[in-house]
Amino acid sequence: MLDTATAQPTTHPLLETHRATLEEAAQALRKRSYYSRYPESPSPRVYGENAPQDGQAAHETTLNKDYTALQDQPGTGESVGDEKSPYGPTLGVRYPQLAVDAAMEAALAAMPAWRDAGAEVRAAVCVEIIDRINQRSHEMAHAVMHTSGQPFVMSFQAGGPHAQDRALEAVVAALEEQRRIPSSVTWEKPAKGEPIRMQKDYRLVPRGVALVICSNTFPTWNAYPGIFASLATGNPVVVKPHPRAILPLALTVQIARETLAEAGFGQALVQLAPEGDGGTLAKDLALHPAVRIIDYTGGPGFGNWLETEAGAQGKLVYTEKAGLNTVVVDSTDDLQGMLGNLAFSFSLYSGQMCTAPQNVYVPANGVDTDQGHLSAEEFTARLGEAISRFNADDARAVEILGATVNDEVRARASDVPALAQSLGGAVALDSRPVIHPSYPDAVIRTPALISVDADNLGAYTQECFGPVAFVITTEGTADSLQRFAGTVREHGGMTAAVYSTDEETLDQAREAAADAGVALSENLTGQVFVNQTAAFSDLHGTGANPAANAAYSDAAFVANRFRVITSRRHV
Amino acid sequence: MLDTATAQPTTHPLLETHRATLEEAAQALRKRSYYSRYPESPSPRVYGENAPQDGQAAHETTLNKDYTALQDQPGTGESVGDEKSPYGPTLGVRYPQLAVDAAMEAALAAMPAWRDAGAEVRAAVCVEIIDRINQRSHEMAHAVMHTSGQPFVMSFQAGGPHAQDRALEAVVAALEEQRRIPSSVTWEKPAKGEPIRMQKDYRLVPRGVALVICSNTFPTWNAYPGIFASLATGNPVVVKPHPRAILPLALTVQIARETLAEAGFGQALVQLAPEGDGGTLAKDLALHPAVRIIDYTGGPGFGNWLETEAGAQGKLVYTEKAGLNTVVVDSTDDLQGMLGNLAFSFSLYSGQMCTAPQNVYVPANGVDTDQGHLSAEEFTARLGEAISRFNADDARAVEILGATVNDEVRARASDVPALAQSLGGAVALDSRPVIHPSYPDAVIRTPALISVDADNLGAYTQECFGPVAFVITTEGTADSLQRFAGTVREHGGMTAAVYSTDEETLDQAREAAADAGVALSENLTGQVFVNQTAAFSDLHGTGANPAANAAYSDAAFVANRFRVITSRRHV
Repeated sequence: MLDTATAQPTTHPLLETHRATLEEAAQALRKRSYYSRYPESPSPRVYGENAPQDGQAAHETTLNKDYTALQDQPGTGESVGDEKSPYGPTLGVRYPQLAVDAAMEAALAAMPAWRDAGAEVRAAVCVEIIDRINQRSHEMAHAVMHTSGQPFVMSFQAGGPHAQDRALEAVVAALEEQRRIPSSVTWEKPAKGEPIRMQKDYRLVPRGVALVICSNTFPTWNAYPGIFASLATGNPVVVKPHPRAILPLALTVQIARETLAEAGFGQALVQLAPEGDGGTLAKDLALHPAVRIIDYTGGPGFGNWLETEAGAQGKLVYTEKAGLNTVVVDSTDDLQGMLGNLAFSFSLYSGQMCTAPQNVYVPANGVDTDQGHLSAEEFTARLGEAISRFNADDARAVEILGATVNDEVRARASDVPALAQSLGGAVALDSRPVIHPSYPDAVIRTPALISVDADNLGAYTQECFGPVAFVITTEGTADSLQRFAGTVREHGGMTAAVYSTDEETLDQAREAAADAGVALSENLTGQVFVNQTAAFSDLHGTGANPAANAAYSDAAFVANRFRVITSRRHV
Repeated sequence: MLDTATAQPTTHPLLETHRATLEEAAQALRKRSYYSRYPESPSPRVYGENAPQDGQAAHETTLNKDYTALQDQPGTGESVGDEKSPYGPTLGVRYPQLAVDAAMEAALAAMPAWRDAGAEVRAAVCVEIIDRINQRSHEMAHAVMHTSGQPFVMSFQAGGPHAQDRALEAVVAALEEQRRIPSSVTWEKPAKGEPIRMQKDYRLVPRGVALVICSNTFPTWNAYPGIFASLATGNPVVVKPHPRAILPLALTVQIARETLAEAGFGQALVQLAPEGDGGTLAKDLALHPAVRIIDYTGGPGFGNWLETEAGAQGKLVYTEKAGLNTVVVDSTDDLQGMLGNLAFSFSLYSGQMCTAPQNVYVPANGVDTDQGHLSAEEFTARLGEAISRFNADDARAVEILGATVNDEVRARASDVPALAQSLGGAVALDSRPVIHPSYPDAVIRTPALISVDADNLGAYTQECFGPVAFVITTEGTADSLQRFAGTVREHGGMTAAVYSTDEETLDQAREAAADAGVALSENLTGQVFVNQTAAFSDLHGTGANPAANAAYSDAAFVANRFRVITSRRHV
């Protein structure tokens, strides 16, 4: 039992180990300057001579067998799992099915000691978990690649160090908010004669079990903020992976449980709830009375259901769904840089990112560039050529493109002319199948462009997930900006970009972005891309438009995951 | 238009005027130590020789006529208002009815300039508003008294300075959260050769119109946190007063509008939406698409509807509803102090506080005190005597008791024997009518006590608003604590108190309070009461049990009322 009368911060060996990291990261978050704890290069010079081979070997060892490391979870005795790599191979990993009620009981039983350990100890233990996850980044990269279909280097970076940085960001964001509440204060109110003196103790308490519902495309990157924000604020976490992307989270949960146990806490603070395709486990878990917090990444249908149905039960629901990511093209003084940058953004993971651009607004009277004025048609053609050139060589293209993750994406990408016709647009650039030298069965597709008229709202005001984007001809940049703000305000958007050489237009674009409630990237022509955000500096999502109701990781993302209970008495 | 490229903080004359106050208040909030800007004594020595008379005269001048100061709001041309003082007199004030759609348009039109003024200017303007409200505290006291039925000094304190301190607290809580985001940063990522350099600007944007639905009993105290938290974060506010407590908010809105106009901002940033009894305006406003934030104080029925229905539309909903405020009696070394303290808590405003104690758990084997061991029956009798003695003199009792605020409360208090019988309890102390020397028509009632058995859960697990409390005999203190935690976790609670001389029991009470998610007052025997909280130190509500989903005013109460929009570009 915590002695609230003294309320000394608990000591723990990991506190000292990670104190400097936590201070450094907290400082970075306050400044929003560049900070990264986990190196993004998969190079053996960074991660160790044998890291690539060891990681691959470790991955291969897990395949085609039972995932025994999670067998100490409360289980039903059944196994689940039918993951198949978008690159072809069947993974064949069988995961122990969680016994839900027993798991919830175990989670709640582990909660008080974790709560009473205090915010600083929890943060230090979380850093230890993330550090250990980092040490297995190569193994994780294979797990992410063969569940999400991301190319290897991206799997390493987005699934590994970038996700780990976002995890650390969530931990320090949570720590900062918890630090704002003193553990104890002497309150002294002036009064006639003696002042009134009270001691007030403030105790941080978690809300209950936190459910994290993960996506197929970014199994770790989109899950870590919720997992670590909830864990750092004292809540036990149940991780519900997407049926086709269990392995990266099994590895994550295993490492978390091992670390928690070594640190003297209950393993049940982090549990995995896997299921095969077609189940209803996410829904069942969301409605379980023990669950008080839900983090979700995925389609708007289930996201809206969670917000409405679970929200109505007083659960906190943080969602990241989908939107219309927009590029407003006005003018540029670096056409080549702009086209190259956009080609990369469209190609990366074959557009299967919630942040990938989809709607490109081009003025009907064309685009001024450093290579002269281009008509709208010329610009569209140049963009198409840039994408084609970027993906010309299959062996190199597969390093950037991704394997299509599901039948829906494959169907859309495989018959772009039919799609264009159904939407009333015209194919400006068709998608091309690309053969992966190592995985000939993978369906890999280059980005397509469909030209549509600005009045054809139905065509471009729904998310078209995957390697298809729309070039939309507008009356001019003012019209583009108005459509940008209007469509994003109504349908949501995770990212936006503008290209213009005119300061006034850029100002207007900033106004439009503020009205739409979406972050804006201006004139990206180099090695920063609209679909990528940097932890500790860029917020991911804004919570200000329908695409997401929260942002990684601002105060609102963490502050409500714990509550403050005061006890007061005269002294 | 805000120049985001330079993002200089806007200057404003009020910035300098209130800089020191904002720093002092922000510092107090960080420390949670004693702080009050607005003196709670209505004495002429504090508020000026003529303040009491001037305030009363100003109040009387508003009665029985049109409230013309709000006629520049977008109106329908109709007037509304049928307020009647719980002390008897009809107020006769007619308020211009708001034209809702036009008002929403006006609010949204005023928003951009307020947004672009920045957090510091907004905070300074808010302090100016609150300072001016403070200057009219005597007038406000009459308005609060003759709408809520609170006695005069309480009306002055709770409706005036205490509410104003809570308003300032919300302003600085919001300012602190907004200050955490830098306006601009140069981000520099190491790279081969030159580092990648970007400028990133962070712009704070409001969510939209904020609706504040106010209560009958604490028209200002429960409204100010929401009003000022939303206003300070850039959101225009529409104030929907309770039909029977419009005047205090008309005065508030009038002062806010005058101040905003003088400070160079749109008056439509604060608007009043009054209606007479029986209307559906609160519901209509809550569902208006322009409304993005709702603060509510009142009964659980409508509060739950708001959480569910408005929440399902993605609106932020902050509610304070009702619960089972509990006192666990174990033992005391100051029986007289304890009984006096509890008698005051039950009597204040005749129990019509959301924080008034309702359920008193007493162990069947009695209570050890400094005046010897008392059986449960003896303790109950002593508590009843203390309440009776406290309210023995009508002329003095009306300074603490309140006028009953509605028929439901009056019915309950006027026939306690019938109520006791219907609940299966026994009258331990009947309620007594008290005649107010100045307001003979007012229905004023002393607190009643009903004894019930702990097994009679139905009797005491619903809120019994007004001057009726339950003494519940339990198997012992362990049973009391278990019932306390269980009933509050399930049905909610705003406050809790424990009396014990045993440190271990106090520790267990703290555990129970943490489990229940409610703040705990221990062994109050002096001039601090369980139903009162101090701004800047005590949180009001916890958001951790069903009585309220938020707390005045922690980070979670303010951090989600604004969003951050980034724009980034290479430099």
